[in-house]
Amino acid sequence: MAELSRSSGVPIATIKYYLREGLLPPGAATSATRAEYGEAHLRRLRLIRALLEIGEVPVAAIGKILAVVDDESASLHVMLGAVQYELGPHPGLPAEADQDWLAACGEADALIADLGWAVAPGAPARTLLVAALAALRRTRSAPPGPGLRAYAEAMASLAAAEVASLDSGNRDVPGGASRVVLAESAVVGMVLYERILVAVHRLAQEDASSRRFA
Amino acid sequence: MAELSRSSGVPIATIKYYLREGLLPPGAATSATRAEYGEAHLRRLRLIRALLEIGEVPVAAIGKILAVVDDESASLHVMLGAVQYELGPHPGLPAEADQDWLAACGEADALIADLGWAVAPGAPARTLLVAALAALRRTRSAPPGPGLRAYAEAMASLAAAEVASLDSGNRDVPGGASRVVLAESAVVGMVLYERILVAVHRLAQEDASSRRFA
Repeated sequence: MAELSRSSGVPIATIKYYLREGLLPPGAATSATRAEYGEAHLRRLRLIRALLEIGEVPVAAIGKILAVVDDESASLHVMLGAVQYELGPHPGLPAEADQDWLAACGEADALIADLGWAVAPGAPARTLLVAALAALRRTRSAPPGPGLRAYAEAMASLAAAEVASLDSGNRDVPGGASRVVLAESAVVGMVLYERILVAVHRLAQEDASSRRFA
Repeated sequence: MAELSRSSGVPIATIKYYLREGLLPPGAATSATRAEYGEAHLRRLRLIRALLEIGEVPVAAIGKILAVVDDESASLHVMLGAVQYELGPHPGLPAEADQDWLAACGEADALIADLGWAVAPGAPARTLLVAALAALRRTRSAPPGPGLRAYAEAMASLAAAEVASLDSGNRDVPGGASRVVLAESAVVGMVLYERILVAVHRLAQEDASSRRFA
């Protein structure tokens, strides 16, 4: 365990905590007081740290994602859905749907229908979109922004490239990577791509704002 | 206050909490036990709720953003910078910069230099980008994704349209909107655009994943 801590940079107490929480499988016992941890543990630790630190996914939610990663019957599509369900924010539904909420629902559904996107009706990303659009409507003075269509067109080609990249992982490994390795890299990829997108978006905003206002 | 609660949908206890925390300015006292709250309070309440629920900005950070909104000497550029500093995630810096971190710094700085973006060296979005790129490198099995340049090109045109939209708010109001109204709508706009971007990105991923894997 000392070696696993050294090579991962994660403190021993933290590794013990992940073991207790079931995020990390136990090592292979070699004696009453020693266990062996291998490459699979190191990979799993890196995945946990990326989800926690970069994805800000709570420990309980990481447990749910890992359960799907380890479920041999789960397809890549089901797994990516599980990641999206656990990623925040999780805006609450209004107690009573007001006019702004209903109009935002209409806007989101029209976008999905216009683009012919295959999206589950209860997708949390749809709720997040509706909540943001409703908040924009509620703040009557808020500027309208570039329009939903502009976001959707930019995202369609990025998302297609991301998903294609997840799929190509398999072909780069001679004889194909194991299912769990593919699953882990798909999960970490989805979370990290989103953070890269957000970070690059903020940098682009800073540049645009500096040109216009500074 | 009962009326403010009704028209905003925010419970009275929550409004009192915001008053105590200084997020909401006190109403104009009309008697020892009554105070009047106007349109400015309603606007401020909507801004606080949007930052909390959609932006997941903690209350203390909202206080810092509002201080800049109310600072008459702060330019729109400074204000948007303040928003970006408070928005999460805030990944920690590594105790010791390893090879992956240094390579990620090089990648981020090359992107910024290549595009000629005006970005402050300590910009938190740069740290977030470096942390995500370093995590991607650490997870050796992670798929590379569409490449930084693809994200940057898509974000440059969206960010330019967003910033232009913030600026146009002023022209839509006869005689020009007051500084504080403009400042509030710029802040809420920046936070909501980002969430719209993330939500649409996840919907596009779901569609792409469903076409490829389902």
